[in-house]
Amino acid sequence: MKVLHTNPRDDGFHMPAEFEPHSGCILIFPERSDSWAYGGYKARKAFAEVCKAIAKSEKVTVCASFEQYENARYLLPDNIRVVEMSSNDAWARDYAPTFVTNGKKICGINWSFNAWGGLENGLYFPWDKDDKMARKLCDLFDADMYDMSGFVLEGGSIHTDGEGTLITTKACLLSKGRNPHMTKEEIEEKLSECLGISKVIWLENGIYGDETDEHVDNICAFVKPAEVVLAWTDDKNDPQYAMSERCLEILENERDAKGRKITVHKLRLPKPVYVGEEECGGLDTVDFRPARTVGERLAASYVNFYIANKAVVMPFFGDEADEPARKMLEELFPEREIIPVYARDILTGGGNIHCITQQIPVY
Amino acid sequence: MKVLHTNPRDDGFHMPAEFEPHSGCILIFPERSDSWAYGGYKARKAFAEVCKAIAKSEKVTVCASFEQYENARYLLPDNIRVVEMSSNDAWARDYAPTFVTNGKKICGINWSFNAWGGLENGLYFPWDKDDKMARKLCDLFDADMYDMSGFVLEGGSIHTDGEGTLITTKACLLSKGRNPHMTKEEIEEKLSECLGISKVIWLENGIYGDETDEHVDNICAFVKPAEVVLAWTDDKNDPQYAMSERCLEILENERDAKGRKITVHKLRLPKPVYVGEEECGGLDTVDFRPARTVGERLAASYVNFYIANKAVVMPFFGDEADEPARKMLEELFPEREIIPVYARDILTGGGNIHCITQQIPVY
Repeated sequence: MKVLHTNPRDDGFHMPAEFEPHSGCILIFPERSDSWAYGGYKARKAFAEVCKAIAKSEKVTVCASFEQYENARYLLPDNIRVVEMSSNDAWARDYAPTFVTNGKKICGINWSFNAWGGLENGLYFPWDKDDKMARKLCDLFDADMYDMSGFVLEGGSIHTDGEGTLITTKACLLSKGRNPHMTKEEIEEKLSECLGISKVIWLENGIYGDETDEHVDNICAFVKPAEVVLAWTDDKNDPQYAMSERCLEILENERDAKGRKITVHKLRLPKPVYVGEEECGGLDTVDFRPARTVGERLAASYVNFYIANKAVVMPFFGDEADEPARKMLEELFPEREIIPVYARDILTGGGNIHCITQQIPVY
Repeated sequence: MKVLHTNPRDDGFHMPAEFEPHSGCILIFPERSDSWAYGGYKARKAFAEVCKAIAKSEKVTVCASFEQYENARYLLPDNIRVVEMSSNDAWARDYAPTFVTNGKKICGINWSFNAWGGLENGLYFPWDKDDKMARKLCDLFDADMYDMSGFVLEGGSIHTDGEGTLITTKACLLSKGRNPHMTKEEIEEKLSECLGISKVIWLENGIYGDETDEHVDNICAFVKPAEVVLAWTDDKNDPQYAMSERCLEILENERDAKGRKITVHKLRLPKPVYVGEEECGGLDTVDFRPARTVGERLAASYVNFYIANKAVVMPFFGDEADEPARKMLEELFPEREIIPVYARDILTGGGNIHCITQQIPVY
């Protein structure tokens, strides 16, 4: 693995869209006992379901700690590869490399990771093991690595169409805990250099209560160029209503990198999901305080799906909005199987299916 | 990775000779402070030299603990892959999988590993991390794995010619600490089943003082079918003299699996190598006792070389026998570059270049 100090754009690389072909997908096996209730017991089963769904159409590699390696190997079928790798938690989207391609080979980007806000408002401390993963994964996959470790970014805070457009949120990318020394324009230029994009669409915000400072991947995702789904509620009393409405307004008034208007599909949210007493009691404490409080609202959203080669793996919440959401994704992805996974036990960890995956584009 | 419970021989697999083509080589980065003086500082540099020499003609993968990953990545050049993997020590020969091939694909064999003798006379405790490595490495390399974990064997205790012959030592394979419930005949049958061999040549012993119960890979190695090098001394006062002489006698009276007589080349040993005061002082203690004592003889032997695709990587000891040994290997391997590595800092750990490597045959 070579460490590259040039920039991907100037070297002819760009980040493809998630709906383009993958050579594989990376996940991390969950075990952190203040993130995952009951020592991760239920989360691991849910992660395994996600892995199996993805493995139907692409090669899945799961990173597990020394301690969880055997469990992972036991819970996952033979066609899934388990490798030992240390982490602080299990969010491959946010600290596995962001892969870029020049059409002939892929390289990985190693961003700086600081647990979604560092000492300002990060979600745990320390985050050293997570931060080392991108480099290790590039090495594992024999991909050269662009070292962008001076710039804080998580994969979940960006979506690209593979044709020059990137969507993100101001709430996240302009947060104090990431790159406060950089202006919006400087951040745009950095994204352009790294991902080969020429247009950034800035949504104001994401999902209400999303602890990542409102990652875009929970509120809005490309389903094809110039076409997105947007998490939506018709309940005007829900604080999410104004947030989604503002996103819609921005999207309807934007053009993508190729000058196209953007078609927006409203993907209706489930009813608000709150942390239950049993879940709360299953979590270890953080700094001598409970990790979550009973009644805390979780950032449940169907937008947090993963687009695999021949499937879309989407979260179900046991809500009456589950089936309509599946139906919409079926219409939007007619060539892919829509595979729902009951994701409550992933959601309580603070994210969902997209957050725990990272695609590797075809070389 | 599939776990197979049949046996390799009946499935059409056999273990190729080390001099056949490799797709790569596995090593483990040393750090154990009661094996390697000064916390492994010098050993890591020596290991890095071995890695570089092998990487000239095959892909090298180095397993490093979380703690040593960065050091490994820093010390090793870009063309060598570093993966995180936990171990108790650094002997890839003895606990990486033994690979077998059917000419179309490879599979790994997972033997049981018990630190060269378990609770009987093993060299450290515990050995759980080492014992898990073969399985992890099969998974890493996408090779199906034969589970032979009921049988204790280290890769360093066997050499094969790829044509049905295996050489080993009684001192090791019939030791009390390995498979005391099995007869010599049962062990032969097990080796036959696993490695596809039809003839076992039993040397009595190996190198004087070899802590592995005298692994064959320190005293005798195939250089081609029906042709071996044998560690030798002309000093009749050295306890090694009688041991090597007995090996010679056996080899001269044996036939290989194809009925051929075996040509033996005497590879003269360096002068006895003893642990020095400085080395001894650099080691952490074991069970409240010094790990080694000053003046202890080490099992130095030139036979412990590694045959890479286009090179033979051999140990040098700063002895006047270094150059004659190199010359002999040059004559025996006319198509390979002979690359000496000063191996004193590997030797003090208890083994040498062959012990720290494991080849992966071409698929």
